[in-house]
Amino acid sequence: MSLSEFALIKKYFFREYSNEHIRLGSGDDCALVIVPDGLCQALSMDTLVAGVHFPLDTQPADIAYKSLAVNLSDLAAMGASPLWFSLALTMPEVNECWLSEFSAGLFELADAFSLPLVGGDITKGPLSITIQIAGSIDERLALRRDGACEGDCVFVSGVLGEAAAGLSILQNAGDRSGLLQQKWASNLIDRLNRPSPRVALGKALLNVATSCIDVSDGLLADLSHLCDRSQLGAEVDVTLVPLSGDLNAYIKTQNIDDVEKTRLMLGAGDDYELCFTAPEGLIPSVKKLAKETGVSVAVIGQMVPGNSVSCVMNGGESLDIRKMGFKHF
Amino acid sequence: MSLSEFALIKKYFFREYSNEHIRLGSGDDCALVIVPDGLCQALSMDTLVAGVHFPLDTQPADIAYKSLAVNLSDLAAMGASPLWFSLALTMPEVNECWLSEFSAGLFELADAFSLPLVGGDITKGPLSITIQIAGSIDERLALRRDGACEGDCVFVSGVLGEAAAGLSILQNAGDRSGLLQQKWASNLIDRLNRPSPRVALGKALLNVATSCIDVSDGLLADLSHLCDRSQLGAEVDVTLVPLSGDLNAYIKTQNIDDVEKTRLMLGAGDDYELCFTAPEGLIPSVKKLAKETGVSVAVIGQMVPGNSVSCVMNGGESLDIRKMGFKHF
Repeated sequence: MSLSEFALIKKYFFREYSNEHIRLGSGDDCALVIVPDGLCQALSMDTLVAGVHFPLDTQPADIAYKSLAVNLSDLAAMGASPLWFSLALTMPEVNECWLSEFSAGLFELADAFSLPLVGGDITKGPLSITIQIAGSIDERLALRRDGACEGDCVFVSGVLGEAAAGLSILQNAGDRSGLLQQKWASNLIDRLNRPSPRVALGKALLNVATSCIDVSDGLLADLSHLCDRSQLGAEVDVTLVPLSGDLNAYIKTQNIDDVEKTRLMLGAGDDYELCFTAPEGLIPSVKKLAKETGVSVAVIGQMVPGNSVSCVMNGGESLDIRKMGFKHF
Repeated sequence: MSLSEFALIKKYFFREYSNEHIRLGSGDDCALVIVPDGLCQALSMDTLVAGVHFPLDTQPADIAYKSLAVNLSDLAAMGASPLWFSLALTMPEVNECWLSEFSAGLFELADAFSLPLVGGDITKGPLSITIQIAGSIDERLALRRDGACEGDCVFVSGVLGEAAAGLSILQNAGDRSGLLQQKWASNLIDRLNRPSPRVALGKALLNVATSCIDVSDGLLADLSHLCDRSQLGAEVDVTLVPLSGDLNAYIKTQNIDDVEKTRLMLGAGDDYELCFTAPEGLIPSVKKLAKETGVSVAVIGQMVPGNSVSCVMNGGESLDIRKMGFKHF
């Protein structure tokens, strides 16, 4: 696609920026960028493959939106401020209608964060999108996975399980034609296609949280990564994990059983909420900061000695998640 | 691949680095890196798709080597010093034998440049490799495409057409079984699979060259990009473009006609040599600097008024490259 690549980039991906940190944008062998003085650069790179990370019939604008959102979510989990991003787009053919919608979805989210696209690559092949994002952060304050302390409370932002329920609805939509007309159902699908990266919350937590991770693979899986790095275990009270009205409507109307409900809330990914830890005494501060960024947070458990995540119900009764089909975390 | 991804990264892609600029490597939501004081960051991102950018039966070590080499070549074209890179690897299945060879090829080249891998992503899907590379550069010295001046000489490093000849040999190897035993043939295939990024030459040219680009799409195509950005034309004397002994052996033994020879040398990509401009008076300096980095350079033409690349032979006779199947540059 070597020659027409330049025309495509110019038409769909080139923007003029007045940003002092972008010294040279796309169009040369490299972009030239400057990191704000005294700050560290946070880097993350995520790939979304068609049919693996999003259904094949996902709208191009949603594919672009989600590709950037999941990368922004990694910055959020570090407490970093977005600086710029690069895009590697592999697509089977040049379809200008598709590209136009993809570009619109991409810049809708990029513009919301004043985030310049500084370069990348367009290639021919099976549809996949790789984004590399960079943010700035004071190294001493970065929200790492390894900072949790014994006794810290475990928090989660927003609600969990919605994206997985949205996926389930899409996969079964053929059988249940009325479902897609329901407001709660379209909300759940929106959560799958257009996750909200918690960038403002991550930044607000910089002086408060001791560790943080974003929930991309499922709460128990991601919390177990945080436990690994912090060399601790965690005890989660599953009755404290917030259940959204939309997810509840799905569970009630679709006769979802308790095992599947638990899988959705604890085991399913793609919610891109933040799971983080902070000392118990800071609960009021955390709640206040979260409220200021427009996101709810809930205390769902505690960091404990050990090396795995265990679950209880109503503050006591142990829940054997392995019996529910979960791997051991 | 969410859970086993971590084990794969640890086994095949994790290295301990003692590098003051890498504050936190892979294993968290983001890597944390610091750009050397006062320098600008040069960024490039390239994707290689199986069956598009390399033959499907390319060895995994060569795929990895080439994926990193083409990104290093972009830094070279800017005169930047490599800092670190991220890898997004999409593969159809977890094949540990394949991964082990891929990893070996990747780190063979990365180690040669003391280049740390700071993060990335492993996903399931059709084989493709995206690398984002970063280098450091004094912004005032960066070798951009837009700096060429009228009258500047056009230089090219090394020799051209070898990679394309290597590809042609591979594509026809079934018919010509003896060919692959020839030393010159295996040299040409090596040039295709393992390009040599001219990083040392790029850095050496920082105070000398007025503009630079790497030859990835073919000399005429890439020089025309340089012309576009510099708002000039170029006149290339095709008889001055160096012909390697190996390519000459291919041309002689395989009865390659003049049109195909010209296509190989002027129109074929994947050589990853540098094409750059400098004032005529600096020819001795350029040749001396190039020699110190172990690379030959040749003057092949001149920057002229206009907006396209034209070709002549033996200093005069015009060569109509459109008649040879080339697009207009």
